[in-house]
Parts: sequence; C-alpha cells; structure tokens
Amino acid sequence: MDAVNNTSESQTDVLIIGAGPSGLMAAYWMARCGVNARIVDKRGTKVFTGQADGLRCRTLEIFDSMGFQHRVQHEGHVAVEANFWVPDGKGNLVRQGPHCSRKVNESPFRNMLLNQGRIERFLLDSIREHSSLQVERGVIAEAFKYDCTKESGLDDYPITVTLRTLSDAEANPSDLRAEEGGSCKVASGVTRGNLLQDDWEELISKSQAKETKTEIVKCKYLIGCDGAHSWTRKQVNIPLEGSTTDHLWGVIDVVPISNFPDMRRLGTVTHSTGTILVIPRERNMVRLYVPVQTIETNTIGQGRFDRSKITLEMIKRRIQTIFAPYTFDFQICDWWAAYQIGQRIAPTFSKDNRVFLAGDAVHTHSPKVGLGMNMSMQDGFNIGWKVAMVAKGVAYPSILSTYDSERHRLAEMLLDFDRHWSGLFTESDDEEKAQNMIKVVEFFEDFADGRRSFYGASSLVWKKKEDANPSASTSVYSYWNLIPGERFPPVKLRMQADGNLKWTTGILQSDGRFRVVILAGDVRVRAQRGRVETLAKRLSSCGSVGKSIVDRYVSLDDRLKSTLDIVAIHSAPWMEVEFFDFPNILYPFDAVRGWNYEKIWCDDACVWDRDCDGKGYERWGIDRTRGAMTIVRPDQYIGWVGELEDVEEMIHYLDGVLVAQTLMGGAE
Amino acid sequence: MDAVNNTSESQTDVLIIGAGPSGLMAAYWMARCGVNARIVDKRGTKVFTGQADGLRCRTLEIFDSMGFQHRVQHEGHVAVEANFWVPDGKGNLVRQGPHCSRKVNESPFRNMLLNQGRIERFLLDSIREHSSLQVERGVIAEAFKYDCTKESGLDDYPITVTLRTLSDAEANPSDLRAEEGGSCKVASGVTRGNLLQDDWEELISKSQAKETKTEIVKCKYLIGCDGAHSWTRKQVNIPLEGSTTDHLWGVIDVVPISNFPDMRRLGTVTHSTGTILVIPRERNMVRLYVPVQTIETNTIGQGRFDRSKITLEMIKRRIQTIFAPYTFDFQICDWWAAYQIGQRIAPTFSKDNRVFLAGDAVHTHSPKVGLGMNMSMQDGFNIGWKVAMVAKGVAYPSILSTYDSERHRLAEMLLDFDRHWSGLFTESDDEEKAQNMIKVVEFFEDFADGRRSFYGASSLVWKKKEDANPSASTSVYSYWNLIPGERFPPVKLRMQADGNLKWTTGILQSDGRFRVVILAGDVRVRAQRGRVETLAKRLSSCGSVGKSIVDRYVSLDDRLKSTLDIVAIHSAPWMEVEFFDFPNILYPFDAVRGWNYEKIWCDDACVWDRDCDGKGYERWGIDRTRGAMTIVRPDQYIGWVGELEDVEEMIHYLDGVLVAQTLMGGAE
Repeated sequence: MDAVNNTSESQTDVLIIGAGPSGLMAAYWMARCGVNARIVDKRGTKVFTGQADGLRCRTLEIFDSMGFQHRVQHEGHVAVEANFWVPDGKGNLVRQGPHCSRKVNESPFRNMLLNQGRIERFLLDSIREHSSLQVERGVIAEAFKYDCTKESGLDDYPITVTLRTLSDAEANPSDLRAEEGGSCKVASGVTRGNLLQDDWEELISKSQAKETKTEIVKCKYLIGCDGAHSWTRKQVNIPLEGSTTDHLWGVIDVVPISNFPDMRRLGTVTHSTGTILVIPRERNMVRLYVPVQTIETNTIGQGRFDRSKITLEMIKRRIQTIFAPYTFDFQICDWWAAYQIGQRIAPTFSKDNRVFLAGDAVHTHSPKVGLGMNMSMQDGFNIGWKVAMVAKGVAYPSILSTYDSERHRLAEMLLDFDRHWSGLFTESDDEEKAQNMIKVVEFFEDFADGRRSFYGASSLVWKKKEDANPSASTSVYSYWNLIPGERFPPVKLRMQADGNLKWTTGILQSDGRFRVVILAGDVRVRAQRGRVETLAKRLSSCGSVGKSIVDRYVSLDDRLKSTLDIVAIHSAPWMEVEFFDFPNILYPFDAVRGWNYEKIWCDDACVWDRDCDGKGYERWGIDRTRGAMTIVRPDQYIGWVGELEDVEEMIHYLDGVLVAQTLMGGAE
Repeated sequence: MDAVNNTSESQTDVLIIGAGPSGLMAAYWMARCGVNARIVDKRGTKVFTGQADGLRCRTLEIFDSMGFQHRVQHEGHVAVEANFWVPDGKGNLVRQGPHCSRKVNESPFRNMLLNQGRIERFLLDSIREHSSLQVERGVIAEAFKYDCTKESGLDDYPITVTLRTLSDAEANPSDLRAEEGGSCKVASGVTRGNLLQDDWEELISKSQAKETKTEIVKCKYLIGCDGAHSWTRKQVNIPLEGSTTDHLWGVIDVVPISNFPDMRRLGTVTHSTGTILVIPRERNMVRLYVPVQTIETNTIGQGRFDRSKITLEMIKRRIQTIFAPYTFDFQICDWWAAYQIGQRIAPTFSKDNRVFLAGDAVHTHSPKVGLGMNMSMQDGFNIGWKVAMVAKGVAYPSILSTYDSERHRLAEMLLDFDRHWSGLFTESDDEEKAQNMIKVVEFFEDFADGRRSFYGASSLVWKKKEDANPSASTSVYSYWNLIPGERFPPVKLRMQADGNLKWTTGILQSDGRFRVVILAGDVRVRAQRGRVETLAKRLSSCGSVGKSIVDRYVSLDDRLKSTLDIVAIHSAPWMEVEFFDFPNILYPFDAVRGWNYEKIWCDDACVWDRDCDGKGYERWGIDRTRGAMTIVRPDQYIGWVGELEDVEEMIHYLDGVLVAQTLMGGAE
C-alpha cells in the first residue's frame, strides 16, 4: 500500500469486470472451482427490477446443473403458448393462435419470464454458497496494460489493470434510488412493494460509507462482461461491427389496466404502424415492447435518434393506438426505457487466450427475441469453466480457444434471428403477419431454446466423420441423438440405490468435472454384463500407478478428488437389478463416507412420477441392450461418443484436455 | 419497566410458548394475519440436526399452501417404496418387497425425509417474510395466572404469564454446541460440514450477550407447544394419560459403512431379537431405530429404564447383530439418542378456549411411524388460523372449540397406529412379519399420509345427513369426493388468463381466507352458463350495502380486503373459453392493479405438463357439466358442499363463522 497515493498492488489469477448475468456466470465457476479470482462492477448495487427477463429452456437446464432452478421455477412465469393478434379489416383485432411448440417437452423446463434482478440474486447466493468470492461494487477499471511477452507463461501475470473505487454518487446513478410518492412510479422505481425480502435486505443494509482508493491488479486472465460499451473490449482494440437500425423502441414494465383478453399471455398485437410484443411476468406485471419511431421525425441514415425526447406518456399513447379498440392504461410502472439498438458483433471474442469478452460486450441486438440474457449467461458459463480449470492447472490452455469458436457462431445466429424477428415488428401489417412470425419462431426455435448449440469440432468436441456426412455412412453413430457439440438430451432417471428421481440436468452437476457416462444397456443380459465388466476392468487400470481412470488426472485441490467422474445409466427394470451387482468402479469406497451410491442410474418408468417414463435410451437413440459411452463436459455438452469398447479413443480425448498425473502421482 | 427488579409488564393478544415445528406453524398464522403476538422458546437456538424427519404428503401440501414446498422438494429425500428384510432360516436375510402404496398419486407430493432443523428454517423464513414477528429465544415461562371471570370478554386479557430471559448457559445445553475433532463426531455434533449456508450463518451470528430480565405478559390466548414435559399443560392441570412401555430404543443418524443392499431405501430388517427401521435421508445419512432393551436387565412394570446406561457403541453392536450377515459400521454420527416412550395423550387439548396445547405437549408416542412432526405441525396449523382470526376479530370465538374435537380424535388414531406398528418391532420374527407390517401400513395409510382427516361435524364442518349414512340416500352428494371435514383433493389446474399451471394446494393459499370454490362445470353449455350467471348475480348482491358477498364480512386490516375469496374452476377446454366471458365477480377490478386475473381456473389437460391431466372433476366426483359449489376453510379443509343454487345455505354456514359487517359498513 502506497500511503501517499492510497494505491495498492495485488495479484489475482482471474479478474472479471462486470457483475451482470454473464459476469456472475463466469464468477460461479471461479467460486465452484476455488479459483483465486475477483469480480468488480462499477454499479453500486445489483440490478433489482427491469432489464432482461426471458429465460429459455437451456438456461434453465444450466441453472438446474448449478442447483437453483427450483427458485426460478417457484418465482417465474411460464410462457409456452403465443398468440398473434392482427387487425380483421373492420377495426377489430382478432386472435391467431395459440401457437405452441411441438418440441415443448424436449426439456425438463419450459421457457419462463423472470426479471434479471432475481437471476442475479440466485447467482450471487450460489457463489456465496461455494466460496468467499464477493462482488466488489462501485469499482471501475481505469487502465490496462498487456505484456505480450508473457502470453504463454502459465505462471505469468501478463495483464495489469488499475481499479478505482468510486464515490457513492458515481456508483449509484439516480435511477437506482428508491422513488416513492405520486400515483405513478416510473424509471426503475425500486420500492419495498416490488422487491422480495432478500433483495430488500441487501438494499437497505448496503453500507454507504466508502473510501476512494486505487489499486493495481496483476492477473493471468481477464474476462470482460462489461456491457455494450465495454471498457475491456476497447482496451484490446476489438471493434463492434454492424449497423444501428433506424428504429426507436420503447419498453415498459407496467401493471396494466386493460380489457385486452390476452394481457396475461405471451403474444403480439399488430397495427398498420407497428407491432407490439406482450410479455406477461411476475406480480401481475406485463412488459410491452413497442416501436415508437413513427411518431418522431425519421431521418434515415443520420445515425442515432434522440432518445431523450421519448417520454413514458408517448409510449403509452402508442400502445393505446395499437391496442384499439381494446383499452390500455396503467398506474404502476416499475421500469421503462427508450432504446435504439442495431445488430452489432465483435469479429473475435478474445485476445491471445488471455482476455475474453462475453455478453453485450461482443454482441448487441434488440431485446425482443427474449434471448439476450440467455446468450450472455451462456457466454459466461462457457468461458467460466474453461478459464477456471486452466487457472487451476487441471486443464490445458489449448481449450481456451474453443470459447471464441463455440460462442461466436451462436452470436451470429442470434443476430440473424433478431434481424428476421425485429423486422416483423416495424413492417406494416399484412395478412400473412402471424404466419410469418410463426415461421421465424419455428425456424430459429432449436437454436433459441438451446436444444441445439452447433458447437463445432475442436479439442473439446470430437466429431466422427459420419457426423459430418451422415448419409455416406452406415455407422450406428449416425442414428444416435448423442451428438458431440450438443447438450446431453435431458431425461429423468431413477437412482439405483435409493429409487429417487432426478433429471440428468441435475445429475450432471456443474461442479468442474468431465464425466464418462456409461450407457450400460440391459445388464440382465449375460453378454452385455460381460461387456460392462470388461469396460470396468479397463477403466480400473488406466490411471496413474495402476489406479482407476479417475486417478489419471490431477485433482482440483481438496474440492474434487478428480476432475473426471464416472456415471452409469442402465436400461434394465429398476427392481430387477441389484446395486452391488455392478462393477465396483461404479461405487467407490471411502473409509469415512462409505460407498458412493450416486453413480448408478436407471432408465425405467416410475409409477409415482409421470415424467420418469423409461424412454431415455429411445430419446438418446441408443439400443437398450447394447448401450454406448460418452464424455460429457463440465457444461453438459457432449465431447465424445463411442461404443463401450472404445476406451482408448476416449482416453485420447481426455488426455488432450485434462492434465494427467505423472506416474509418480504428481502433476506433469 | 421496574428499574429495581428489572421487571417489565406488557400485553399481547397471543402468546406461543415453544418454537418447535408446532409452535412455528401457529406463529406462521400470526405473522400471516398480522396478529399482535409473541413466541418464546427456552432453547438458545433453533434445532439444527437430528430430531424428527418424516414428512407425509398432507404436510407437504400444507407447505405448498404456505409457499415453501419447493425448498423441501429440493433438499429432501423421497421415500415411497418400502422393503421388508426377514431371516430366511438359513442365516441370511431376504428382501420382501418393495411395497408401494396404490394411492401414491393422490397427492402432488410424495412422503419425504428431511430433518427438523431445515423445516424450522423454512418456517422461520416464511414468518419473517410476512411480518416482523421473531422468536424470542432463551426465554422461559415461569408463572401463570388465569382469571376465569374474563373468559368470555373478547377485549379482556385473562392470562398472565411471567417470562424470564435465561443466561446463555441455561439456554444452550451442551449438545447444541459445536463439537469438532476426533474421527467420530457424536451427540448432535453441529459442524460447518453438516449445516447449510443459511443455518450456519444464523448459528455463528447469534449474539452471545444477553441481559437477564423478567417480564409479566398479559395475553388473550396462550398456545403451549412446549413438548412432552409441557410447562403450559401443567399450569392448566391437564394430565397426560397412558402408559410407559417396557421398551428401550436407540436411534442414530449416521453415514453408514455397510454392504447391506438397501441401505439407501426405506425398510425394516427383522431378527429374532427385534426389528430395525431403516430411514435414508439427506447427505448420505441414514437413520436407524433399533430396540435395545433386550441387552439390558428388563424389569417389566418397574417404570422407566435407565437411559443413561445406553451408549452409542451398544446401539451399534445391536445393529450389527440384526444386520448380520451384512456388515455395519460408521465413522460419522450426526446425532443419536436413547429413549423410552409410551403412548400418552391428554384428555383435552384446551382450557376454556383460551389456552391451547399442541404437539408433544398433548400426545407422545414412539417416533417410528414417521408421523410425530407431522401431527404436531398440523396441530399448530389447525389452532393457529382459528386463534389468529378470532384474535383479529374476523371470526367468532365459537370456532375455537373445534380445535379439540378435530385434533383429539386424530391423536387417538396416531397412538393406535403406533401401538400396532411399534409392537411389530419388538416381537420375535415370524414368517408373517412382512405381511403384518404391510397390513398395518395399509390400514393406517389414509390417516398417516393425511389423505383423510376425519374432522367431525361442527360449526366449521357441515355434514349432510347423507354423509352420515350414505347407503340410505340417493342424493348426488353421496357420490361426491368433496367431503366436509376432509381436505380439498389436490388437482393441477390451468389459470384461464395466462395458462400457467398450479396445484390447488398452491391456489388455495394459507392466507387467512375462506374460499367459495365454484366448480362452474362446462360453461360452453348455455343452460350451465345461465346457472353460473344466476349464481354470480346472487353472490354479487348479498354483501353489506348491496355489495358482493366478499364485502359481507369484516376485513383483516389492510392485509386482506376480505376474509372471503371466490375462486372458479370450470371444466371446458382452456382454449374454448374467454376470460371476460365469466361473470365479473370473478375478476374484481382495482383502479391501480387492474383486473384480478387469478380467480378463474380450468380443469383441462395440458400438452406440456403430464401432471395436468384434466381429470379434476372426476377426482372430485363432480359432474363435468353441472359442477358444484364448496366452501374451503383457510386450512384447505372442506367446510360445506352444495349445488350452485344453494347460496342461502352457504351464507348460513359463513355467517356462523365469519363476523359480518354492519349495514353501515362497520363491524357488528
């Protein structure tokens, strides 16, 4: 500490700038893996209301793997069916719909709506549960130095960032302060009435006294999650490319007073001057997105409109016009904003595999596809485990380059979706409007809900030749629904030992482990049991010093004995198989904790839970007798698939990713 | 405040003594209804480990109505199937089972296991969410005075209790202190490793400084939930009647090291010298109940054995004997106890409808039926809402006498069950053992799981003549499964306005309201729509000063505009009915909050949730076209049933319970 300048110096392995959803997702992995990390945010408090609210199934599956999906389920609002209201030509609006996805049951969860403030709460609670990592709020990054000569040194700290603690006034913009009184509370009016207990307690307990100080932090990895105007992105000279659109939008969160019949249902309302998106949410609130540009002088091509001219009253009048002949008004407005956003994307999301950018920092688009928060969180989730495992020395730095290749392609798809979808809101109404909307929704559905991720081949995703060109092959792999680069398709299973039920999204926990998932098939069949026993024998002796495969790789401190886990899922009826009949690599013994009962699962129907239907193998496209084997990454994406005999190839995959122990038992 | 004696005097409407599960359930209602109440407990902290752990479906349904069942669901261990292990005569144990209830799907929830400490946590969090009521810990009740001349005065405080704040040593018995080190932690070893974050934070933040003081508290109602040695019960001279059994038992919570195949499954293991009950629970722990009396000198009829002679080692050896040839050992023991409990019950549970006793204070029995905590919580739940509503002046004191009549009968059934069940554990093994156990379980199942409550006729439960003697009648009522005195059978429904799904256990919230549940039938049928409209008209004009029925009764402060709510459940397909087609008494309007969208529900199958199967009317035994009408009490028990035309009779029921507004708009 420099006493005169009030400046100190320190080191940390990972620095995360920005504690929005993407930054917190990355921080979750630091907490979970015990990484020496810090996370700073310039705002003085977390978000409490407003902002993003759409949650797609894949995000909810990820939350389940992190352990807090039950809280989202309890508080959020499910929105499955969508209705499209269009003019009937006689001055009335008529409903087309409801439209419901045919794939709605391909995830344990349904698309939901819950505001960003609650999601941040759940992430913060989860981080706190696993570590002492805390968000440092009211802290801004001011200077950046990067020493490229240190790029490849694993023990080097090539990045230097200067952090400054803000004064209260700087850290707490006025719209985050509680605003009471008056019949209409506007602009992020945070009041006791619209916050849940835990958020309210944090807000009122927030200490207001803060000392201004400057700190120089050296770090190995920097993750910039600092939004559309990302400071981090500017330091590494990565531009945002694309265009600003000509459309000016309003968004409001209100408790509506309206006789519109579908005010509590997801949908759109079309008018000759534009289309409104209606999104019902928690506590009787509804979010409405409405194009407002037509009431402004529209000078196309002249860059940004003057958003400051947009008032709440103006947005309300626009909505009233479009909703007519139905009424629309409100007394309670939790939050509102006017915005103008084009489709913009950074050409690359990282620099030298030392600095990474996630979320709005590298892709911006309209919020109307209900995907922004999902994409940003999945960015943070993707880079988080990779940086965490590399920083801990358990995975090779070569996996870091997959962040850019996996997430950049999805960001491009996101922008493509947004271009198609947003365009429909500003075009004039036509008879095909509803059909066009359904077409766009269906075309992008797998991508948007996260049922497909399209992660390409890499050291983390081994594609078979057949995957690339299925028609040219007769391999069994071609028919499998276990596709490297895609998520492990969720199924509800019974635990063999205790009969309890769990979705695979909960079984394949996000705890920093790769998993060998043995689809053991029908172990009542003697030949199949032989195959499983042979596999077990091979796995039992391929670790260091003759131990099992889980001892082949270096451990993650005292948190995880191994970065590799083994899980078996058999297809025999639950009652016809005994736990101890399985090879003992599937129930490791501990002198204090006894047998581990949690690694053998069963794909069998359960009379007391209709979701557990015993059709997992069918969903995975795997033969119920013969089974298969797969490697699932820490983020539940499939890295490799093969037959029970393909042990060598599987180890080859793992050896390329995880740092092996030396034969003497230490790290290489 | 008396400065010399450090004694103060105060008044409170309701005083609850004991903050275990039953006391907290009663306190929930005080918090929810805004009653001026206090709750004290002599212990310095809440329970953290050990104690009761069985949770029956009905308790879980109640938790759902209170809003925290999702937390139990997330942390608890489901135990549906049971296995009975018996000797095969050749020195081995063989499994009989699994036995699974045929009625397992009659509740949204399955029987679960989760320790009492977590249940107390959820209750405390819920109380905190609704009020500023806090448990005053380390406070003991020392003196009691009751002025019977004030028995009937609603504004009188006939009860005087002297409370004393304990010193730390008195309030924190040694077994509640953390015990670390050593390979085997025993006797309520509370450590960081076995507590969840929220419990741990409470424990370490607990202030240790406390001033000893005495306080004289005058109250209107006293609820004693102070356990088997209830101080409150002794003050009102109510005895516990029954016998102490000759059996001495051990109970341990351990992480077992055993090759017994069903160590993670609910079941029993029988041996010639007694039977063990095996109850798997959270965090790999298993609870074992084992009879240990045979290793002690057994002097039958000489009263209590010397429990202090029982050691953990002794219990372990007994278990090893019974489990043989399977192995049994452990390194981790979270909690253990030796106990001897007979079936004892108080002849009455209340005095003058001013003092009420709940839980172990009035019934004790062996813990092996997994019902004790459930019965105690349901006692507290039952008396809680009644006292709360009477104390707030919204219900007549006459309802208070139903506490004794409703709960005493159930306590007798509990003891009966326990006598039959516990007996089976100390009898020698015989070939019929497993069959006898299944017979007992099945005979008491409806009662134990809470599917039947057997509440008798009273001002709160109007039985039709036909209910008493169904065979003598041809009335439609005889076929209904909506039975006054029983819980409203749970069904998953769709909300008409937004299509979201909810179990009725969540819809019929425990918020202090009676509910008119209109089973509106098929409202697409013109004649039926006419009946519903006629009903709505009648309900709209039977309140005070020509208002609706919900304005007929006095309000509960600003918390609830009315103590009566109206909910409709129709049977038409969700998509073929419009929200605004219903009579507007079903969507009350508020100038700020707009329409209330939450009162119209639909019993229709939903493609994206298999639990929502559209078979509610069938489960209720109600004609899908014609419907019916029922009053559901604040605790979800049915108070009255009738046809849509039986408005007068229904109002007669309500007028006997709820305090009506005067015609001028004030309370009578």
